[in-house]
Amino acid sequence: MKNSAILLLRCPDRKGLDAAIADFIYWHGGDILHFEQHQPGVERSYLARVEWDLTGFEFDLKDFPKWFAPIAEQFSIQWRVTTSNYRPRVAIFVSKYDHCLVDLLYRQRTGELACEIPLVISNHPDAKNHADFHHIPYSVIPVTKENKQDAERQQIELLRKNNIELVVLARYMQVLSTSFIEQFPQQIINIHHSFLPAFIGAKPHQQAFDRGVKIIGATAHYVTEVLDDGPIIEQGVERVSHRDTIEDLVKKGRDIEKVVLSRAVRWHIENRILLYGNKTVIFE
Amino acid sequence: MKNSAILLLRCPDRKGLDAAIADFIYWHGGDILHFEQHQPGVERSYLARVEWDLTGFEFDLKDFPKWFAPIAEQFSIQWRVTTSNYRPRVAIFVSKYDHCLVDLLYRQRTGELACEIPLVISNHPDAKNHADFHHIPYSVIPVTKENKQDAERQQIELLRKNNIELVVLARYMQVLSTSFIEQFPQQIINIHHSFLPAFIGAKPHQQAFDRGVKIIGATAHYVTEVLDDGPIIEQGVERVSHRDTIEDLVKKGRDIEKVVLSRAVRWHIENRILLYGNKTVIFE
Amino acid sequence: MKNSAILLLRCPDRKGLDAAIADFIYWHGGDILHFEQHQPGVERSYLARVEWDLTGFEFDLKDFPKWFAPIAEQFSIQWRVTTSNYRPRVAIFVSKYDHCLVDLLYRQRTGELACEIPLVISNHPDAKNHADFHHIPYSVIPVTKENKQDAERQQIELLRKNNIELVVLARYMQVLSTSFIEQFPQQIINIHHSFLPAFIGAKPHQQAFDRGVKIIGATAHYVTEVLDDGPIIEQGVERVSHRDTIEDLVKKGRDIEKVVLSRAVRWHIENRILLYGNKTVIFE
Amino acid sequence: MKNSAILLLRCPDRKGLDAAIADFIYWHGGDILHFEQHQPGVERSYLARVEWDLTGFEFDLKDFPKWFAPIAEQFSIQWRVTTSNYRPRVAIFVSKYDHCLVDLLYRQRTGELACEIPLVISNHPDAKNHADFHHIPYSVIPVTKENKQDAERQQIELLRKNNIELVVLARYMQVLSTSFIEQFPQQIINIHHSFLPAFIGAKPHQQAFDRGVKIIGATAHYVTEVLDDGPIIEQGVERVSHRDTIEDLVKKGRDIEKVVLSRAVRWHIENRILLYGNKTVIFE
Repeated sequence: MKNSAILLLRCPDRKGLDAAIADFIYWHGGDILHFEQHQPGVERSYLARVEWDLTGFEFDLKDFPKWFAPIAEQFSIQWRVTTSNYRPRVAIFVSKYDHCLVDLLYRQRTGELACEIPLVISNHPDAKNHADFHHIPYSVIPVTKENKQDAERQQIELLRKNNIELVVLARYMQVLSTSFIEQFPQQIINIHHSFLPAFIGAKPHQQAFDRGVKIIGATAHYVTEVLDDGPIIEQGVERVSHRDTIEDLVKKGRDIEKVVLSRAVRWHIENRILLYGNKTVIFE
Repeated sequence: MKNSAILLLRCPDRKGLDAAIADFIYWHGGDILHFEQHQPGVERSYLARVEWDLTGFEFDLKDFPKWFAPIAEQFSIQWRVTTSNYRPRVAIFVSKYDHCLVDLLYRQRTGELACEIPLVISNHPDAKNHADFHHIPYSVIPVTKENKQDAERQQIELLRKNNIELVVLARYMQVLSTSFIEQFPQQIINIHHSFLPAFIGAKPHQQAFDRGVKIIGATAHYVTEVLDDGPIIEQGVERVSHRDTIEDLVKKGRDIEKVVLSRAVRWHIENRILLYGNKTVIFE
Repeated sequence: MKNSAILLLRCPDRKGLDAAIADFIYWHGGDILHFEQHQPGVERSYLARVEWDLTGFEFDLKDFPKWFAPIAEQFSIQWRVTTSNYRPRVAIFVSKYDHCLVDLLYRQRTGELACEIPLVISNHPDAKNHADFHHIPYSVIPVTKENKQDAERQQIELLRKNNIELVVLARYMQVLSTSFIEQFPQQIINIHHSFLPAFIGAKPHQQAFDRGVKIIGATAHYVTEVLDDGPIIEQGVERVSHRDTIEDLVKKGRDIEKVVLSRAVRWHIENRILLYGNKTVIFE
Repeated sequence: MKNSAILLLRCPDRKGLDAAIADFIYWHGGDILHFEQHQPGVERSYLARVEWDLTGFEFDLKDFPKWFAPIAEQFSIQWRVTTSNYRPRVAIFVSKYDHCLVDLLYRQRTGELACEIPLVISNHPDAKNHADFHHIPYSVIPVTKENKQDAERQQIELLRKNNIELVVLARYMQVLSTSFIEQFPQQIINIHHSFLPAFIGAKPHQQAFDRGVKIIGATAHYVTEVLDDGPIIEQGVERVSHRDTIEDLVKKGRDIEKVVLSRAVRWHIENRILLYGNKTVIFE
């Protein structure tokens, strides 16, 4: 696999943006592999993802800020650049339901998720054997009403020490405090086991069962201060019928949750997601 | 197509129910074609749909109440019986969006919906040409805040005069009054253009767009006094992305709404739906 | 709706293509609204669709060939350009099953399909009333083994006289001759009522029923000399079970066919499809 | 969980079958929990699955053959009976791709698959660590053209010694001989990584990629003498686009294969599958 650069950018929509960006890469020797842009109608903003082959590119990416500055300034561009072979460091939070954890670890091992997972954090010891199987440190930090603040301090310390860039809540059953969330903006992905915004909050499968829906779902989203209200990254669904018990909903839910969460994590680590307002653009 | 009898029933769950029902039909000469039952775990109730060939059945179905009375009494069974070649009389209510109306009329003509449609009622004249095409009377009854009660009286009169057994709200944009609804219990089907219970009320596509969901839906349900809260009959979904505008959501929504509504109507007229609590059993 | 230009192009992949194209449009005053490109790994080719606002564009599109010639030559680009408000002329071929015809006419009327439909051709008179409803001429040209060549000559004459740019086979049950097909390269779209390449040829629903599949499908594709082998544009599926009879498969199939065919037609008339080898790129 | 009896049966369709079966169970004190039957139109056969609570049932199930004999004879019924708490013994065959193996082992551990897995057999040592993790014996039996007959003899010996009742080919890349297959009629389930009958044989993902399909699939089926032609139990699909490489198809395929195979295995071990001709009835 060749190494390529990935530039994600967002700015007010202006004439000439595509030309300016494509020119910049071309004139510095880059061969563009993918170029996708999006202009949300209402907001008059411009979002884009550009990937180019670094073979023959004439300067080192660490000098990108310097070289790109004139264009960024001219068009008021917010941007970040990375490379395809960079592997971000991801921590997984889990409670007792371990299906998403097991699934993510498997996908990481097979190369489907191009990241490092140096850390699993849990409020229970139950899932430790899965982390052990993959030789990943597993930290048990029990959380109670009383020690929550202290527990979060320990968690954040671990995240900092391990240079974690993405936190994945893989059916982690605790609500993070606002102060925790604020320290990791657009860096925490949660899987909610309903088709949001239906069935916000606790026991969504029970809620779905009681309402008698014919389709259940799961939603991966960035965590923000408002519970289950962050930007939606991906959703999945499955048909259910009157024959399905609560337990069947839970079972069917697991298969959706795994796929939906892993897709969201992959898109994040492959730098395919941009936010505008409370929404996501997914550059596939 | 042979004529068959269809018995729908509901009662407290008791040992021997299947035997009692199957025996009754068999001993009177009926050949059972389909037998499906459901016992919702929690409620300890029993629901079933039995269909049998009437060839060789030894009494006329209009005497069914008399013959079935002992069993019905013994097991406290609520039931209704009908025949497969009976065509219920259906009225369609429509406003300006005519896609569901056109779809239902087409399906009725091709035989997919085994019902009569003697009446289309609308608060606008716009969709009249489609009713004309199928030679169906189209009554325009404008509805305003002021005349609502009177308008509903006219509507109900038309329904009564035409012996209507099912009212289909095919994107009818007026909310029916409680008194209207009470006169047609489990006889009014509505299509709501969202994946209920998400986006209840007005402009669900706008709500879905604003929330940034990745999947949109439609829900067919029986109308009850609480808005968009009746028993769900069927739901359907379609993927959307950041590239989809509001107009695209509306377009994609149309295709889901047509299929979901027509399925709900078909199940109703084929006597495949039973209610328990606020939920439906669909005997496919 | 503003008028915009749409450029579809294909060429060998070369460094600088995105820059050259974006520059060209920008320097002539065009504001790019969408830019999507694709580089199929194996073939080392480059395909793109660019759409730009014509407000302020400095030359008339009919002079595009002249102005674009230097770039086209430099990069060996095959291209075609059109405008968003151009409405291509489409003919629909139909036999007795009229669901796709009815669906396409409805979508055209509501504006979902931005095309003209000056002509419906059929080997049977059955569907005429639907064309009449939309005031579209309906030509009955019976086809037998004996008169096939003559019938096709009449058909082609009608197509030529009406300046038809796209032929849609909406469940047209006759196989077109190679000589017919050659005259309309990538201009004939067919709907096949199976999930190709499964169940090629006659009676795909019967084949699917006999094989006991659990999912049925439909496929829209460009017609080429080899039966049911042309580039696939879109496919759709629906679950079936042992409870579904052949007739149920046919019914469920109709709903898939309508959606799949209409999507393929829309993508074609919106200039979203490019071919490479025997495959399609769909620029959504 | 209460223990219940499950009776699967098949016979020529005759009047009175439902009554005879329901009566038999009722008169011996059984409380029927589920009763589902199917009468495939063409074949005039009758298939059913009945489940009843064994609390209060008046004889031991091992005497079922004796008690049921008169009815079985009268109606020419083929049947088998089992209990809900019986856990069949399942062997998994795997080669190098281990995703289905890992998935099945996980589902077994969490109770989703109510079976014993005393044995994993592979022609490669690669997946051993997963069997080890679950403390399941893993037998490596390499297979070459030369030793195939001998290898199969070893495999069958292991299956017999472990009283295996179901063999699951979880992406096992060897074709079993006819003589192997004949010894396990309707006891071998395979997952084929295409939407059968499309792309039979080797490299279905490559075939799908080359054909340019817009949807890929996976099929779980019973293994019969004809390659990829056995009765289909379950199928699943996923959308793909021109952006998906072969590797993407393989990745997406994995998620479908896991779900489809595990569902087929679950239905088999829960005694929900009956065969008629080359098709399956799934009693959900």
